[in-house]
Amino acid sequence: MVITNGIAPLTSAPSTISSLQPPPPPPQQQQTTPSSLPSVKIEDPLPYVSLKTGLCYDVRMRYHAKIVTNAYDYTDPHPEDPRRVYRIYKALAEAGLVDMKGASGAGHIGSKLMQHVPAREATREEVTLVHETKHWDFVERTATMTQDELVEETDNGDSVYFNNDSWFCAKLSCGGVIDTCKAVVRGDVKNAIAVVRPPGHHAEPYKPAGFCMFNNVAVASRVILKEFPDQVKKILILDWDIHHGNGTQRAFYNDPNVLYISLHRYDNGKFYPGGTFGNYDKVGEGEGEGFNVNIPWPCGGMGDGDYIYAFQKTVMPIAEEFGPDLVILSSGFDAAPGDELGECFVSPAAYGHMTHMLKSLAHGKLAVVLEGGYNLDSIATSALGVTKVLIGDAPMPLTNVYARPEAVQTVEKVSRTLARFWKCMKIGHKIHDLPEAPPVERLHDIIRKYQASQLFAHFSMTKLPIFRDRISRSFEDQVLCTPGFQSAKTVVVIVHDPPDVWTEPDPVTGQISLHETFVMDAEIKYIQWAHQKGYGVVDINAPAVFTDQEDEGYNVQAALQDLCLYVWDNYLDLSDARNFVFVGVGEACGGQVYLLGHREVRERVRAAIAIAGSKTLFPIVPIMDEFITDWYYKNSLVLTSSNHPMWDQSNGSKNPRKKYGNVQRTEYETMNELLIGKYSDVIAFAEEDIEESSSEEEREGGPDRKRLKNDDRSSNNNEDEWVDAVTPGSAPAAFL
Amino acid sequence: MVITNGIAPLTSAPSTISSLQPPPPPPQQQQTTPSSLPSVKIEDPLPYVSLKTGLCYDVRMRYHAKIVTNAYDYTDPHPEDPRRVYRIYKALAEAGLVDMKGASGAGHIGSKLMQHVPAREATREEVTLVHETKHWDFVERTATMTQDELVEETDNGDSVYFNNDSWFCAKLSCGGVIDTCKAVVRGDVKNAIAVVRPPGHHAEPYKPAGFCMFNNVAVASRVILKEFPDQVKKILILDWDIHHGNGTQRAFYNDPNVLYISLHRYDNGKFYPGGTFGNYDKVGEGEGEGFNVNIPWPCGGMGDGDYIYAFQKTVMPIAEEFGPDLVILSSGFDAAPGDELGECFVSPAAYGHMTHMLKSLAHGKLAVVLEGGYNLDSIATSALGVTKVLIGDAPMPLTNVYARPEAVQTVEKVSRTLARFWKCMKIGHKIHDLPEAPPVERLHDIIRKYQASQLFAHFSMTKLPIFRDRISRSFEDQVLCTPGFQSAKTVVVIVHDPPDVWTEPDPVTGQISLHETFVMDAEIKYIQWAHQKGYGVVDINAPAVFTDQEDEGYNVQAALQDLCLYVWDNYLDLSDARNFVFVGVGEACGGQVYLLGHREVRERVRAAIAIAGSKTLFPIVPIMDEFITDWYYKNSLVLTSSNHPMWDQSNGSKNPRKKYGNVQRTEYETMNELLIGKYSDVIAFAEEDIEESSSEEEREGGPDRKRLKNDDRSSNNNEDEWVDAVTPGSAPAAFL
Repeated sequence: MVITNGIAPLTSAPSTISSLQPPPPPPQQQQTTPSSLPSVKIEDPLPYVSLKTGLCYDVRMRYHAKIVTNAYDYTDPHPEDPRRVYRIYKALAEAGLVDMKGASGAGHIGSKLMQHVPAREATREEVTLVHETKHWDFVERTATMTQDELVEETDNGDSVYFNNDSWFCAKLSCGGVIDTCKAVVRGDVKNAIAVVRPPGHHAEPYKPAGFCMFNNVAVASRVILKEFPDQVKKILILDWDIHHGNGTQRAFYNDPNVLYISLHRYDNGKFYPGGTFGNYDKVGEGEGEGFNVNIPWPCGGMGDGDYIYAFQKTVMPIAEEFGPDLVILSSGFDAAPGDELGECFVSPAAYGHMTHMLKSLAHGKLAVVLEGGYNLDSIATSALGVTKVLIGDAPMPLTNVYARPEAVQTVEKVSRTLARFWKCMKIGHKIHDLPEAPPVERLHDIIRKYQASQLFAHFSMTKLPIFRDRISRSFEDQVLCTPGFQSAKTVVVIVHDPPDVWTEPDPVTGQISLHETFVMDAEIKYIQWAHQKGYGVVDINAPAVFTDQEDEGYNVQAALQDLCLYVWDNYLDLSDARNFVFVGVGEACGGQVYLLGHREVRERVRAAIAIAGSKTLFPIVPIMDEFITDWYYKNSLVLTSSNHPMWDQSNGSKNPRKKYGNVQRTEYETMNELLIGKYSDVIAFAEEDIEESSSEEEREGGPDRKRLKNDDRSSNNNEDEWVDAVTPGSAPAAFL
Repeated sequence: MVITNGIAPLTSAPSTISSLQPPPPPPQQQQTTPSSLPSVKIEDPLPYVSLKTGLCYDVRMRYHAKIVTNAYDYTDPHPEDPRRVYRIYKALAEAGLVDMKGASGAGHIGSKLMQHVPAREATREEVTLVHETKHWDFVERTATMTQDELVEETDNGDSVYFNNDSWFCAKLSCGGVIDTCKAVVRGDVKNAIAVVRPPGHHAEPYKPAGFCMFNNVAVASRVILKEFPDQVKKILILDWDIHHGNGTQRAFYNDPNVLYISLHRYDNGKFYPGGTFGNYDKVGEGEGEGFNVNIPWPCGGMGDGDYIYAFQKTVMPIAEEFGPDLVILSSGFDAAPGDELGECFVSPAAYGHMTHMLKSLAHGKLAVVLEGGYNLDSIATSALGVTKVLIGDAPMPLTNVYARPEAVQTVEKVSRTLARFWKCMKIGHKIHDLPEAPPVERLHDIIRKYQASQLFAHFSMTKLPIFRDRISRSFEDQVLCTPGFQSAKTVVVIVHDPPDVWTEPDPVTGQISLHETFVMDAEIKYIQWAHQKGYGVVDINAPAVFTDQEDEGYNVQAALQDLCLYVWDNYLDLSDARNFVFVGVGEACGGQVYLLGHREVRERVRAAIAIAGSKTLFPIVPIMDEFITDWYYKNSLVLTSSNHPMWDQSNGSKNPRKKYGNVQRTEYETMNELLIGKYSDVIAFAEEDIEESSSEEEREGGPDRKRLKNDDRSSNNNEDEWVDAVTPGSAPAAFL
């Protein structure tokens, strides 16, 4: 038998063993005491678990306040309000985490769960590790300035205010943060939260700004790196205040030992502090290149899903790869709901989740430091959510877990930018820019030329000349036609988006494989149909954007509308055709609908089919007369995908109005399925109308419509006049 | 003045306030006691923090053991060893988390940090919530079987063994897990770990398998859903055992209330339990569709980085979107280093991190249940890592954070598959499959046809006929040539990969924009040069894969080699050209190098340029004679990117051997940069060799080489004989 540690595996058990009592220990165990058994009980096996969470709070930080100079200071107090720190403390006390009596400084700050970290004044030596001496001297002077001088400095400052206590509070706030971080590093507490003001992250090395005097977190980081060189070599500063921490970024921009990651509203440089310093391309400099990560939201309204997404995709992977020895959280709570400056919706549950994630770094050494946050209720509940998780509670479940497209796009830009420096970001991202030097061709152009060569090979279609001085040069190769289409009795006009491309980039390299990339060009079935029926065909490819430099700023839809009018005026209207069938595909339907409203087409256009898919639906604009809408409704067929936004009941929309045409909801989701699935219906619709009108004409002996034409039908003819005998009094065509 | 809660913001402070003492409370506070102050202290503000972590352990689970039938049962004991549970308990005890005396069942199991959850026998009613009655009856019968019967059932079973205690242990293990989950749900403990055996997740509803009797976790889930219908509506079962939990997947395959997520080795269906049930396309059925997530590793060797990556990219987002009320962790530790079955490397730190992440779900209600894991030391340290984090410790920092390409690719496949069901997975993924119906063209083919039309338009190049019976049909359009190249004095042969495509898919939809996708075709510069010099040009496009169904399984490199020989034998060798310059680009260089080794080319090939980039370097294989290697080294130029793997010093490679040619390391990283940057060097190298040989010929009065030719030079001529006058005795060309 194999015996391990004195306990023999039992291969057969006596029948009495199935009783509910645990059995007496087998004989062998009583006789030997294996030497591996500890003889002394381990007093504190998990110190981290036994430690408390530190709390730095000092009521004297309330003395720094804006001098009241007018009534508004009462009715609309400055957001950096002395009550902020008190309200947070009060929330912790009401939740039972600390003793309420500590709020006013009179009682003991602390409890079974939290341990007081006393604040103390930072020293000149400490602060000047980050700030210039003259900055220190300036703030010192405010302690003895007159009221007028203080008001003047307040007015001249970059969103700061001063009173005679600002100097003391600035030192107290900074010193409190330094000692908070020291307590965490030394293991006096397992983690900590410093509820301090004035905040710090906007303070530049040479000046106060954005309600901040000294950069508390930056100074604390420098002190820690200096005084604990063996324990702390790398610090992560995570800044989730809604404003970019320009001061902190500046302090460590060249430093590879301090990784600064900030999530903030950027709004294209318009959100405080403004300028481009907070953009994602600011990655650090020199040795610090790659150790600065900005995640700049383009707008407000960001919520839980967006922040959690950024954490999972970018913040945590980079932080884990960095492997910090200490994490300092520049924790503004101005992304919380109710904050009028931030206008975002990050809930206490999400703050809790992010805190929980950060706890997994640096073996739990995490110091949370209050920065901004201006709605007194919001910051209280948010700070409480964070503190509970610090102490060891599980985070509350999230309710909103979805990331908005803006968040996904922002995180993607950040990941691509940082791929140059972080291996975790390389996954799926190319780290090389597109070369500027040719020969480089846009895939759009390659595909159109390929389509043109196919249409030539199969249907002898060639380019229709479009004259540059009228129409954008980008449409040069975009209109193709069958030979002699102008003599055909029926002409099919197809106005379409570029084809869909299906591909799956390699998840490791981000490369696409030419063999696993497919171009879906189902419109060609419609051209085949028209060709086989002997109809003329005009094919208009409508690019989604213009890439020709001449066209910069040119509105694509407007250009497409111009083009459709041009083709009508110079070719279609002048042709012999008695029947036109329009088939629009995708966003390009807009050009076709525009034409149908702006020209008198009713006599000859038999069917206006718009295979819209999930693209925009365009209403006909009845320029000619008020009957056009009815005509359009009767003669159109607008096919939408099953998941077109308009069918989303929550928008409250029901059936669309007639001006959108005869809109139908199909069972197909993708454009390609739609083109193939509804093919028969489409051509049946078209052919029915063509046949109907042909028999009508035969019965009535020729077209009703009289036209005045210029004798010269050359394509240089840019104008055309006509009179419609059927509806007298109608206005002539409005030329754009 | 604005007064809040009795504390007035001080707008000007007396100078004495800057002393180090906190001030006496302002008078107002002494007089009023705001009613919002709690008068009773909250006893237990964070119950979760005060609760202990549950431990279910019962020494009697050791009685289930394999009956010893031969010597091997001693020397190589069955991996599902009774000592497994004891060794885990012992590790917890040695770390001070529990009392060692509890190991043998004789002492108290529990401590300041952990609370005993006693195991008890599961009932028939409970077990048959998942298992068929005949399964229960069968296991019950084993309690009274004879030894011969037990051995027979062991031999006939699907990797299971039985003794007379198996029945009791199976019930005890199952009942222990049920009560563990109940304790977590009721809040008796904050979370728990059940150190039990036999394990459960392979047990099917109708039979034991894979060391498992009853599916402990599945039964417990059903019991919880039944007995706590208000508290627990949704359960997440996370299975990180290295084997797929087929039994658990089966039990909930149609159930949307139980989300089963498993990470396991799949090895294309070859890893136990085998078959395709564990593949990523098994997403659930009926109402349960989408609620089954398999993350199937293709091989062993997976480590921390791979698991953390899967958690961050897939497991946590889906779990958060699901929002469970209880999380059960089917925790096998056979992915740990040292497990001979698993062959993976998941460290205790990584298990700790993943546990920490799972703690953030279901407001912390997490039950960890032992499944597999067979290296006694590994499971002990792994379980300890998990338990510490359960109790509240911070996870140890990770050392290996990098995900291997296999992991990235697997996670990507899973994400694409699940995008149909989970909004978080939709980001960046299309949810529509490629349509099977045409017209769908591969981008590769479009681009080649486009290139062909460009080369025709600019250089009048046309297709070179390649006969199908010899060469793969996939090369049909792939060889182009200038008119009359066979009469040119100098012919440039370009053998190249398809061009690079640069694109950035939309991170939200995964779509690529045709306008933001670029094709980089810098080889055309080389064709321009040749054309301008009046050289003949043969352009061979070597696809990376074959897509023609005829060619399935056809080795692309071998086919390219055949093609190069074909072109040489049927065209180049028979032409009038006195000078050949080969320019290979990318992986396609392999075909060119093969040709140069397998035919006598030395008299006419002046330069063999291989622009390899970061692709494979091909050595010349000297079939003709031993001097070819020297010749190749002297007449070749092999250009590599700066980051070619061969320059990675850690591989120990220095300069490559001569058979690879004259290999140079350039300063460029991408193929496009290389083609453009080294253009002048390449053509200079080529032209110099061409001129040299031309002047040599002039001096010597004509080519040395005599050839025997068939008079009929038609391309039907598949064989060619020749004699080289310069090196007598050389072997004739070896035809493949």
